[in-house]
Amino acid sequence: MNRIASMDRAQLKALYAEELQKYEQIKAKGLKLDMSRGKPGSDQLDLSDGLLSLPVSGETTADGMDVRNYGVLDGLPSCRRLFADILGVDVKEVFAAGNASLNLMYDVIAKAYTHGLVNSEKPWSRLERVKFLCPAPGYDRHFKISETFGMEMLTVPMTEHGPDMDLVERLVKDPDVKGIWCVPKFSNPEGIVYSDETILRLARLKPAAPDFIIMWDNAYCVHEFDGEYVEIREILSTCREAGSPDMVFEFASTSKVTYPGAGVSCFACSERSMAHMKKLIAAQSISYDKVNQLRHVLFLKDKANVLAHMKKHAAILKPKFDAVISRLDAEIAPLGIASYNRPKGGYFVSLDTLPGCAKRTHALLKELGVVMTGAGATFPYGVDPEDKNLRIAPSYPPTAELNAAMEALCVCLKLAACEKVLG
Amino acid sequence: MNRIASMDRAQLKALYAEELQKYEQIKAKGLKLDMSRGKPGSDQLDLSDGLLSLPVSGETTADGMDVRNYGVLDGLPSCRRLFADILGVDVKEVFAAGNASLNLMYDVIAKAYTHGLVNSEKPWSRLERVKFLCPAPGYDRHFKISETFGMEMLTVPMTEHGPDMDLVERLVKDPDVKGIWCVPKFSNPEGIVYSDETILRLARLKPAAPDFIIMWDNAYCVHEFDGEYVEIREILSTCREAGSPDMVFEFASTSKVTYPGAGVSCFACSERSMAHMKKLIAAQSISYDKVNQLRHVLFLKDKANVLAHMKKHAAILKPKFDAVISRLDAEIAPLGIASYNRPKGGYFVSLDTLPGCAKRTHALLKELGVVMTGAGATFPYGVDPEDKNLRIAPSYPPTAELNAAMEALCVCLKLAACEKVLG
Repeated sequence: MNRIASMDRAQLKALYAEELQKYEQIKAKGLKLDMSRGKPGSDQLDLSDGLLSLPVSGETTADGMDVRNYGVLDGLPSCRRLFADILGVDVKEVFAAGNASLNLMYDVIAKAYTHGLVNSEKPWSRLERVKFLCPAPGYDRHFKISETFGMEMLTVPMTEHGPDMDLVERLVKDPDVKGIWCVPKFSNPEGIVYSDETILRLARLKPAAPDFIIMWDNAYCVHEFDGEYVEIREILSTCREAGSPDMVFEFASTSKVTYPGAGVSCFACSERSMAHMKKLIAAQSISYDKVNQLRHVLFLKDKANVLAHMKKHAAILKPKFDAVISRLDAEIAPLGIASYNRPKGGYFVSLDTLPGCAKRTHALLKELGVVMTGAGATFPYGVDPEDKNLRIAPSYPPTAELNAAMEALCVCLKLAACEKVLG
Repeated sequence: MNRIASMDRAQLKALYAEELQKYEQIKAKGLKLDMSRGKPGSDQLDLSDGLLSLPVSGETTADGMDVRNYGVLDGLPSCRRLFADILGVDVKEVFAAGNASLNLMYDVIAKAYTHGLVNSEKPWSRLERVKFLCPAPGYDRHFKISETFGMEMLTVPMTEHGPDMDLVERLVKDPDVKGIWCVPKFSNPEGIVYSDETILRLARLKPAAPDFIIMWDNAYCVHEFDGEYVEIREILSTCREAGSPDMVFEFASTSKVTYPGAGVSCFACSERSMAHMKKLIAAQSISYDKVNQLRHVLFLKDKANVLAHMKKHAAILKPKFDAVISRLDAEIAPLGIASYNRPKGGYFVSLDTLPGCAKRTHALLKELGVVMTGAGATFPYGVDPEDKNLRIAPSYPPTAELNAAMEALCVCLKLAACEKVLG
């Protein structure tokens, strides 16, 4: 197979015709496949079914309290300890909450708007303009939160070590720039692990806005599927040492450890921010679901046990990622029509088509009955300036379906590339 | 025993001395009792321990979906049907969510501030002033939500049929008045059930504000402890028939059906409001805890079964309320130093001391080691203009403790009244 760039028109047309034939054959099958979201497969969910019979009736006392009743706004102490253990922070810095860290991120931003963060001069709703840094490609739901509050999103390119820090350092000189979204480990979608230097530079930022906030979504903190657990620099202490302890909120959850949307979540922040948040949250909630927090404490126990549990996820996930990569290596790489990452953790393979081919590829795929995250979704406002990024989520479909979806994707990538080059 | 008003100073001093002696005796016991919050007792919690082993592993599919995975923002359809059944509304009008209806109420108000409700001309954060009607005595946490958003709270007196509707109808002519807090059945703390006429007049309000909202906290919709289930007029259809379908958000939860803070909650509203809310909530959440929703569907089944379950709560609660009322009847009523309600449902007995005696009674009690909700808490800003209302929450303490607490309360009521009359 030659690289597409070196083919003449006749070769291109032959390739196109060949792929079109495959496309029609696949279409005739009437597929209905979903590679759109980072949802665990049902075999992964089964790994946590031990949760369903915990806690046992009569054993609902923990940390000296009946977890079935009201109380303890910041969560069951043992659940806070579990998260502190996983994140490498102090238990005083952890607030254990409900079923979704996304909800907590939204809440922090919502409170910034209605009340202000601990160092805010006024609530953000009173400001003329709020700008937010959005490393991209990134997580569409982060950008949606920014969008729903009417922020101006500034795209920051990703490098292999994390966000382009030269640009970040320049942009934070603008007092309207109030924060940055980060997925520091196995970033969504590229699977990039922020380097020590990136984390240090983030913590050492001297933003013009006194209430600039690093939204540190550590969604994949223990989510290696290839190789051993990788420790990244702990952000709270790094910010503290840099003299800006209040500049970060960290988020984590068990959504991809136990059950998505039925697990437990937490945020971690400085003690000063914590006191501020607890005062505000006291008007919103009496307490979160401590029964589910106890379930998770009993089931997950501690970080070592969580890491052992994650090995079981890895055993299911790695073959799926291998299937994606090996097919791309075999069918796409030789043509030179897309580049992609080779993640060791997280939930996605980020794929860059030739410029201008992502939407077309997505549309072709959709017609085959294969759903992927919308082209552009990984960029602020859903607009990919080069129309090239696609996010592959291999976890949900069973292997046979994943193979069928990848076969379809490769055909569509080739068709879109041929169309582009043929003009 | 004579009424205190008819005693001469010598009689009053004798009574005071007698009660002071009892007070010292009780103080010597070093009590540590809690009558502060409407928390179910642990025997009530035991009634729902069947939840702990549901759903069974391998039986986590419901309504055609795996409840353990992401998805379905507005909740498990069967959970929505359960709430629709209980509330007498259409399933399309129900959004089933997480562990706390308080959180949903906060969210509706928060979204009014950040985005506006479906009929808002602009977000409330952009308004000079937001006023809210607060029937009082009422639920302190409602008032806290209003307070945290900086609303101006307007106190509306309660009558035996609900809020003073003449006043409400007058106040809503002010376009700054944006809503009203209501606990329509077994109101907190008085246990008042809104009359048909009150509900009709509420639904027929023609507020100057186009986005005026009735915050209908149906917290005690199935919470009779004395006598049979009482149906109140259904508010959504009543508002719809009055031509104002979007004027109400109803809230309910299983906090006092199963586990407080570990149950499921819902809001109900017009389909137009629902579409608006779902669009906003889509930025906040992927889905709520459907495993816990399924647990509740399997355990509670339907309205008839819920009512049967509530009879078990009633069997535990009624003797506690009887103990409170019979002691007040025996020790307080004859002296004419307090009035109180005789609720048939809900979680509280509301007690009015002689004017100016509530705080003093509370302080005396506190010194005995008995905690009650702070005097004034049932009024906006925590200020009871007559300093007379106290909220008794009999559910949490075991009977022996409740009796000890009530003995202490009666002594303190008498001491405070004597002090007041003696001057």
